[in-house]
Amino acid sequence: MLNFTFHNPTKIIFGRNTIGTIGEEIAKDGHKKVLMVYGMGSIKKTGVYELVVNSLKSHGVEFVEVGGVKPNPVLSKVVEAVNVARKEKVTAILGVGGGSTIDTAKAVAVGVLYEGNVWDAFTKKYQPEKALPVYVVLTLSATGTEMNPNAVITNEETGEKYGMSYPCIYPKVSIIDPSVQFHLPPKQTANGAVDAMAHIFEYYFSGVENTDVQDEMAEGVLRTIIRYTEKLLNDPTDYEARAQFAWCTTLALNGFISAGVGGGDWACHAIEHALSALYDIAHGEGLAIVVPAWMKYTMMRNLKKFQRFAEEVMEITPDGKSSVQIAAEGIEKLKAWFASIGQPTTLKDAGIPREEIPKIVENVAKRTLPIGKLVKLDKEDIVRILEIGAS
Amino acid sequence: MLNFTFHNPTKIIFGRNTIGTIGEEIAKDGHKKVLMVYGMGSIKKTGVYELVVNSLKSHGVEFVEVGGVKPNPVLSKVVEAVNVARKEKVTAILGVGGGSTIDTAKAVAVGVLYEGNVWDAFTKKYQPEKALPVYVVLTLSATGTEMNPNAVITNEETGEKYGMSYPCIYPKVSIIDPSVQFHLPPKQTANGAVDAMAHIFEYYFSGVENTDVQDEMAEGVLRTIIRYTEKLLNDPTDYEARAQFAWCTTLALNGFISAGVGGGDWACHAIEHALSALYDIAHGEGLAIVVPAWMKYTMMRNLKKFQRFAEEVMEITPDGKSSVQIAAEGIEKLKAWFASIGQPTTLKDAGIPREEIPKIVENVAKRTLPIGKLVKLDKEDIVRILEIGAS
Repeated sequence: MLNFTFHNPTKIIFGRNTIGTIGEEIAKDGHKKVLMVYGMGSIKKTGVYELVVNSLKSHGVEFVEVGGVKPNPVLSKVVEAVNVARKEKVTAILGVGGGSTIDTAKAVAVGVLYEGNVWDAFTKKYQPEKALPVYVVLTLSATGTEMNPNAVITNEETGEKYGMSYPCIYPKVSIIDPSVQFHLPPKQTANGAVDAMAHIFEYYFSGVENTDVQDEMAEGVLRTIIRYTEKLLNDPTDYEARAQFAWCTTLALNGFISAGVGGGDWACHAIEHALSALYDIAHGEGLAIVVPAWMKYTMMRNLKKFQRFAEEVMEITPDGKSSVQIAAEGIEKLKAWFASIGQPTTLKDAGIPREEIPKIVENVAKRTLPIGKLVKLDKEDIVRILEIGAS
Repeated sequence: MLNFTFHNPTKIIFGRNTIGTIGEEIAKDGHKKVLMVYGMGSIKKTGVYELVVNSLKSHGVEFVEVGGVKPNPVLSKVVEAVNVARKEKVTAILGVGGGSTIDTAKAVAVGVLYEGNVWDAFTKKYQPEKALPVYVVLTLSATGTEMNPNAVITNEETGEKYGMSYPCIYPKVSIIDPSVQFHLPPKQTANGAVDAMAHIFEYYFSGVENTDVQDEMAEGVLRTIIRYTEKLLNDPTDYEARAQFAWCTTLALNGFISAGVGGGDWACHAIEHALSALYDIAHGEGLAIVVPAWMKYTMMRNLKKFQRFAEEVMEITPDGKSSVQIAAEGIEKLKAWFASIGQPTTLKDAGIPREEIPKIVENVAKRTLPIGKLVKLDKEDIVRILEIGAS
């Protein structure tokens, strides 16, 4: 096990009928006026908007709004919201929505207290130690942003999709009511499943040894995600399945099951971010293409772990097979499972021709190469991975 | 899954050579003078004392000391330390030691800010919302107190051993260096194993349903504790085993794997506290007697879960057996495993005659009855459980 520091200060309020507590949580921290950030308006259809607004009002919290955050959230929206937040002199940011909205809220929280371009925090030119406090009402479980210090934003001018990770952007309070996710289309549940599983993989397969209890917990969360994704695709209004699924996506990236495993690999995410920066594809779709291809390319460098994964998570029976066979079957079964929940698993499935590979690789290469930890990947490696994932 | 609020603000610093950071952690919070609480002096033999003192000095943190905390820590020591802390006007308490020392430090932290008798916090006559900040250097992994809001103290005048649980006593920072535990006698490792497993059982078997991911994680941590206890009894200086074991004992009771499971059962702990309040027996020893007896008594009320436990944790093969058989075999195997690591598993093993049972039950009954959640236990039930555990 590697040395680690674990400090996750986010307060989670989880369960049915919890959204109405948001006003109290914000008011008791002394905030009189907040900026509420949200997405494309689904919160108005589901009643979440009304719940939040009533709760703020009944606790005397004024608010201004910036809506219209899109999936794969963009820098221009962050800048727009920063300007509103400054003009209105709010003291906290409230994100109501899914990962894109919450990440936007976090970026705004950093931007308000920084005179330069907030993109500097993503390129690490600026490494913020302060941000306005962020409050969250989560309406789409997937990215884990509700309990971590990360945010991913696309700079649409440069076509770069980068993440940032700073302790100052841990949400202060996050409310997760799984019952408001009943209406989500199956596609978003599938995207969330792949994203959460990929978060776990980034640590699980990163090559660090002597991480037995972390592996046990990772495998347990992976099995649970698989089980409840299938249940939800069957019945999207199954509360217990929504609750299990929601909590798993939080656990997948709140630093808890990965404590002692180091910083993770993150090559799959880097490659995927290039994909969804360039093409109209969801993060979870891009990962369903990149992850199995990366696994095939790197499998021999961590064979024992891929074998363990195949047996413990993908239920491959080892009888008489070689380690290589078992590991390879595990990866194939994962890929088939991604397909079974409606995900593309090749570039072709996503309508991206093989000829685009050099362009994707150039986009990945805008960041410092090599990427990854288990295997340090340079351009040539990334080309090969994308070729594996092409069709 | 039940609704829950999760908020664990403790910062964990984990790994080799981390103890020297304690001075910096305390100094950066602005403390100039602390009370250092410790046990029977083993920290002076292992070099931990010197590491802590040097770190405090080099960061300009003054300190006063109260040593001599014994296993099953007592109220009189808390009162003694509260008086020192007040007289010396310290602004924080630093516990350096195992569970007894840290629990004493927490009680002192409460006592300093309360004019009445600190025992009131254990009887709930006083429900503290403030305490001095507590810092921890852990030297014995077992109780999980380093990352939770609990403390257990014995009132030696009344023979009562009670716990308290208040958010204000979460440690601010806890340092866990597994390598300082190399010298621990096997007995203390075995006690720690039983204690940590019992913490998990209190939630796992409490009868709440739809807790799949929590069960998966609980089972993973239980399997890991079993595996690494065996390794440590073989080689107490195996760093990776110490690290896995240490982190598991923290995970067992920091609220993470039990979030959504409710408050737990806690009947076994209540019964055990009566045992170790009356007899010279370690908490882990008392639990090794009470837990299997409680399991046998309550098994039929949660048969599916006991069967799952037998198969997933105790590796009982189900072939052709009835659920009852499988569940019962799991409990017997757990009891045999406790014995194999040197624990008493009956009152007789611990030198407590069957005739003492009424006295033990009277001690349990000093608190409000019934106790427990899966099965609400009154006096008669507790008699029966202790009779099962008698010999």
